[in-house]
This record gives sequence, structure tokens and C-alpha cells, in this order.
Amino acid sequence: IEHIEWDAEAAEKGGYDTYMLKEIYEQPQALTNTLIGRLHDETGEVNLDIDLDPGSFKRISIIACGTAFYAGLVGEYLIEQLARIPVEVDVASEYRYRDPLVSENTLAIVVSQSGETIDTLEALREAKRFGAKTLGVINAKGSSMTRELDDTLYIHAGPEIGVASTKAYTSMVSAFLMLALWLGRARGTLSAEQGAELLKAARELPRLVEDALAPERVARIKEVAEKYAMASDYLFLGRGVNSPTAYEGALKLKEISYIHAEAYAAGEMKHGPIALIDEKLPVAVIATESRLLEKTISNVQEVRARAGKVILFLSDGDTENARHGDDVIYVPRAHEMVSPVVNAVAMQLLAYFTAAALGKDVDKPRNLAKSVTVE
Amino acid sequence: IEHIEWDAEAAEKGGYDTYMLKEIYEQPQALTNTLIGRLHDETGEVNLDIDLDPGSFKRISIIACGTAFYAGLVGEYLIEQLARIPVEVDVASEYRYRDPLVSENTLAIVVSQSGETIDTLEALREAKRFGAKTLGVINAKGSSMTRELDDTLYIHAGPEIGVASTKAYTSMVSAFLMLALWLGRARGTLSAEQGAELLKAARELPRLVEDALAPERVARIKEVAEKYAMASDYLFLGRGVNSPTAYEGALKLKEISYIHAEAYAAGEMKHGPIALIDEKLPVAVIATESRLLEKTISNVQEVRARAGKVILFLSDGDTENARHGDDVIYVPRAHEMVSPVVNAVAMQLLAYFTAAALGKDVDKPRNLAKSVTVE
Repeated sequence: IEHIEWDAEAAEKGGYDTYMLKEIYEQPQALTNTLIGRLHDETGEVNLDIDLDPGSFKRISIIACGTAFYAGLVGEYLIEQLARIPVEVDVASEYRYRDPLVSENTLAIVVSQSGETIDTLEALREAKRFGAKTLGVINAKGSSMTRELDDTLYIHAGPEIGVASTKAYTSMVSAFLMLALWLGRARGTLSAEQGAELLKAARELPRLVEDALAPERVARIKEVAEKYAMASDYLFLGRGVNSPTAYEGALKLKEISYIHAEAYAAGEMKHGPIALIDEKLPVAVIATESRLLEKTISNVQEVRARAGKVILFLSDGDTENARHGDDVIYVPRAHEMVSPVVNAVAMQLLAYFTAAALGKDVDKPRNLAKSVTVE
Repeated sequence: IEHIEWDAEAAEKGGYDTYMLKEIYEQPQALTNTLIGRLHDETGEVNLDIDLDPGSFKRISIIACGTAFYAGLVGEYLIEQLARIPVEVDVASEYRYRDPLVSENTLAIVVSQSGETIDTLEALREAKRFGAKTLGVINAKGSSMTRELDDTLYIHAGPEIGVASTKAYTSMVSAFLMLALWLGRARGTLSAEQGAELLKAARELPRLVEDALAPERVARIKEVAEKYAMASDYLFLGRGVNSPTAYEGALKLKEISYIHAEAYAAGEMKHGPIALIDEKLPVAVIATESRLLEKTISNVQEVRARAGKVILFLSDGDTENARHGDDVIYVPRAHEMVSPVVNAVAMQLLAYFTAAALGKDVDKPRNLAKSVTVE
């Protein structure tokens, strides 16, 4: 007789070893929930069900902590590029104490998976006190923030249990893509044609992320992660809209593997951090299709000239640049403006398999809480 | 007969072991040159000899690389607080490729010791192309940038030879303090009384920095630096106007000791980087007199609860908080708005004596150039 114990937790993990891995694989569905129903192919419009007047803002202030802060940095880039409104992004714990410059023409966007992060909640209250209009990019329904916001753009990513955020991040970035499209179309900075092109790219995201999770891609990332798992430090580099992808990649690795990973905009490396580079330092470089690709590759050459080990993330088909990496990881080719979503998946997998190789508890990393509800 | 060889280099170093140490000690004089003659006690005004109209700007964009970027972050804080103009700070290599939002009401301030940093120079050209007014915070006379700028606020720090910037940084920060005073007084956001108080604080800077270099203070920092010199990693924390001081402290240590140092706004630590903290990680915390001191100390307690080793920088006389540090370093008490200048000196000395203990060539750290004139 064999006793088969029913394990509620394993059932909840849906056959995956960890919540985090389950949530990584849930991203095609989460992105479908974030995007679909809001993008209208026939009209080229996004419908976000937001009552705020998109033409009334002269400045946007994005406020968040941790992973949500990096999603906000992608948002800054997308909104400035597509809607031509000045955006600044603040970490909430700084914003709430800096007497922020706010008027009734300021839109304050707070970003939080839980809607309960205390620093972000208090920053929201500060922004309101100064007269800002407020919008939330939030996952959890009925949370404290949603009760105080003028409007909420739910990301609909579903419950996230793993402490290190994965699907909430890619859904937040996708939400910012929609916001940028909405603002750009309403303000006339984005033509119908450009809008339609980006909308098409956004609609492809669930499929692209599914592709990013194909078994042979995951196996390749696992192989590279294990090769460098004993590194004590890691550097991540990206440029433009993928600088925040590098920041998020470093944060993810830091959170679950405890390897000291740090990220820089690639062009900034030679102004200081290049001093760290030697043959023991793996440098993960996001060098996917972009108008800055050539510049990024030139930064890669600077790393290799100092004997740094380059893990190069390239778009499918870029055989030309493969010679610049010690290890190459191919990711699905995506429109530059949506590529941060696709590339983030590769960052998550690199962090995941590094932590797994080191035997870390990825769902409950030391010292961290899922929602930080104390200051 | 003894042969005494005349050593030109030693002579140039004025009796110091290195250019860097000489330049650290030159800071009281450099700051005198930056500040004095521009601050008028009797009228409470600053005279910067700038032709630009301080009332004409709706936005300020600060653009720089490396150490100068961190000086710009202090500038952002000071200008937003004192002159209530929205400021954003960009690393030059990103700014020049991001189709920046610029109008004729935008003041673009570029910051560079040499005036030759190619990324910053190209970003300046980009800002001009979009119609911005331009101002430089520059050390070197007759440099490429000064020829293209509408106006230049020279920092007058004198030649800086050490690759890791020291006196140029504190002079840049002091220049931003004067700019913030100038803008605030001209725009009426700063009363004559507040202006006079800050002007008085600014005038004290050379004396405060001289005090920060007193032999017993330097000896204490050397002692602490040597205690932790074998650490493989370091964390730096600060809040508010001293967040950039923490960033600069980490950069300095990274540049000359090759220890992987990273900095965070202290309140952001618990949103990720706290996972790194264990008993092997020294955490340098700037906890000098400030309205945020209590919050900073609560962040320190979070570090210690995870067994991190805290090097606590406190203002003279703060015996109350000394118990929160594993090691305490006292710095001269300064007005919060000028404290980044005084605190930076302690950061420089910590980095210097760490690198010296490790036998590194602090004047010519590996991989780094004094001015980065290639992209």
C-alpha cells in the first residue's frame, strides 16, 4: 500500500516547484488579461475606462517602490516618447518627504501590486494634498490605494504569491504601454498609423511571451544561469527603454539569489563602474533589436576588453552580433517599445535558475516581505 | 654624501602620497574659490554673473555623467526645494538618444569637470537643437562645452589630476547651491531671511570642510576603512538631499578600491536590496542632522536586525544615536542643505583609505580615464 498525501500547496503551485515559476509561466495569460478587451484593432484606439481628461496634464509624476519603480521607469520612457508629456519617476519613500512640485495639472501615477505598500500610499496622499489628479496602476482589487485614487487602471495579473514580482511587473509595463498609447492618441502626438502599429505590437505580447517561455529557450537560460551561479557579483546593462529592464534583472537576481547584482545604463558604465570589471564578473547585456543596438555593442566591447564575461541577450536571428558574447541568449524579436516585456521574462528566468542552482528558497527570500506595509 | 633626487611628481603632489589625497585636502581652498566673491552677506544675494533670465524657465534639465551626475542629483533637490522649478536629471548617454522634451522655457544645465566629456557635449548639442537655453557647471576654462554654452558657471576648483573626482564634486555641489539660491531669490520662492540663512551656511562651507579634514577625524575614518577593507561588497544609504551623497560614496569606493559598492535611498532598501544583508556586509549610512534623521535611524535598525554591520555617519554631538552603529564616524554639524558638501568629504576619505589599505593605485584606477572623450 502506498500512501499518497494530498499536498494543498503543491496543488496550488499547479505542478510547478515554486509559486515564482508558476507565475513566470502565467505571464501569457496575465498579459492577455491586462491587454485584451482594452485594445481595439478596428479603431486603433485603447479603451482604459479612465475618466480623467488625458488633455489636461502638463506633468506626470510616477511614484513607486522596488520592482514597481522600474516598471514606472519604462512608463516614463514610453509616455515621454509617445505622448510628449514630461514625466518624472520617484521612489515613494523619497517623494513623500520632498515637498513635491505638484499642481492641478499634475497627474500622479502610483504603481503597486498590492495597493497596500505604505510608502506609496503615503506618497499618494501627499500628491493629493498638493492638488494632483491621481491614477493607480494596481493589481489587487479593493486595496487601500484604490479607495483613495481618482481612478485605477487594474493590471488584472491575478494573485501573485512569490515574493519576487514577475507577472505583476510585465503586466505593469504593459499597462504603461496602454497609458502611453491612450495619452498619445488623445493628445495628437501619435498618428493613427503609429498608434495602430504599436497596438498591433502590444496585442502580440502574450504570444511573444509564450514564445519566450518555450522549453528550448528556458533550457538555454538555465544552462547559462548554472554556468555563472557561483559568481559573487553580476552587472546588468541596457540602454534606452531597456535600461529599466537591466535594473529589474539586477533586482530580481539580488532578491532571490543574494548575489550582488547591479545595473547601469550601458553608456554610463565607463564613467565609474567599469573599474569593477575583471575576468570574474559576468555582465548581462540586453542587446535586442533597437536603434541603439550598435552603441550597446560598443559598450560590450569595452567590457570584453577588460576580460569581463558577457552574457548577451540578442533578438532571434541576430547572428552578426553573436561573436560579441561569451554566452548568447536569444529572445523573441519584438518592437522596441514592447521589448521590455519580452526581455523581462529572460531576466526572471536567469535569476530563477541561478537561485535554484544555489538552493535558495525563491518564494520566500530572506529579509523580504511580499508587501511592505511598514515604513 | 647623500644623493637627494628631486622628484617632480612628488613636488607636484605637494607632499601628499597621491594627487587624490592632495585634492581632498585642497577642498577648503577650492570651495573658497567656488563660493567667495559670489555671495554677498550685506545684501543676502548671490552674484553669479549669469546673463540668462532666472524668471524665464519652466523646467530645468540637468545632464551629466558619473560623479557630475550625482552632483546634479543634489542640484535637483536644492533647486526644487528652494526655487520650486521642476528639475530632472539625466545621464548624458541616455539623454542624447531619448528625443528629450525641451522648449525655449527649458534650461539645460550640463555638468562636467573637464568640459570635454563627449556624451555630455553631445547631449548639450541635442538640448540646443531642441531650443533649450544652456548653462554649464564646468571646471576647465576654454573647454569644448564652454564654447557652445549660452553661459558658464565656473566652479574654479583648480586642476584635478586624480582620476576619481573629489574637489570638483564638492565644488559642483556648491555651485548648485548658489544656483538654487539665485533662482529662488529671483523667483521669489525664497524670502530674504531664508536666503540670508542659506547664504550664511554656504559661507561656512570652507571652514566646515577644513574641520572635516582635521587629523583626528581623518585618523578615525582611516581606522574604520581599514577595519572593513577586506569586505567584498558595501552598501551606502542616505535620504533626501544626502541620497546622492550615498551614491557618490559608493561610486568613489567602487572606482578606486574595486569593491562592489552600491547605494540606495535608505527607504528603498526594504523593497529589494535588503536581501543582500548579512553579517559580512558593511553598510555605510549617512545619518547626519536632518528632518529625516529619525526615519534613517529606523532604516538602520532594519539593517542591524539582519546582522549587517553599520558604519554610521553622525553629526557632532549626536551621542543619542551612536548606539545604532557598529562604528560611528562624526562629521561637522552643518545646515541640512549644505551638508552634502561636508558629508562627501567623509565618503572620499573612506574610499581613499580603503583603497590605500588594499594597495591600489588610487590616482590611476584600472579601466578608468579622467575625462571620457570617446562615446
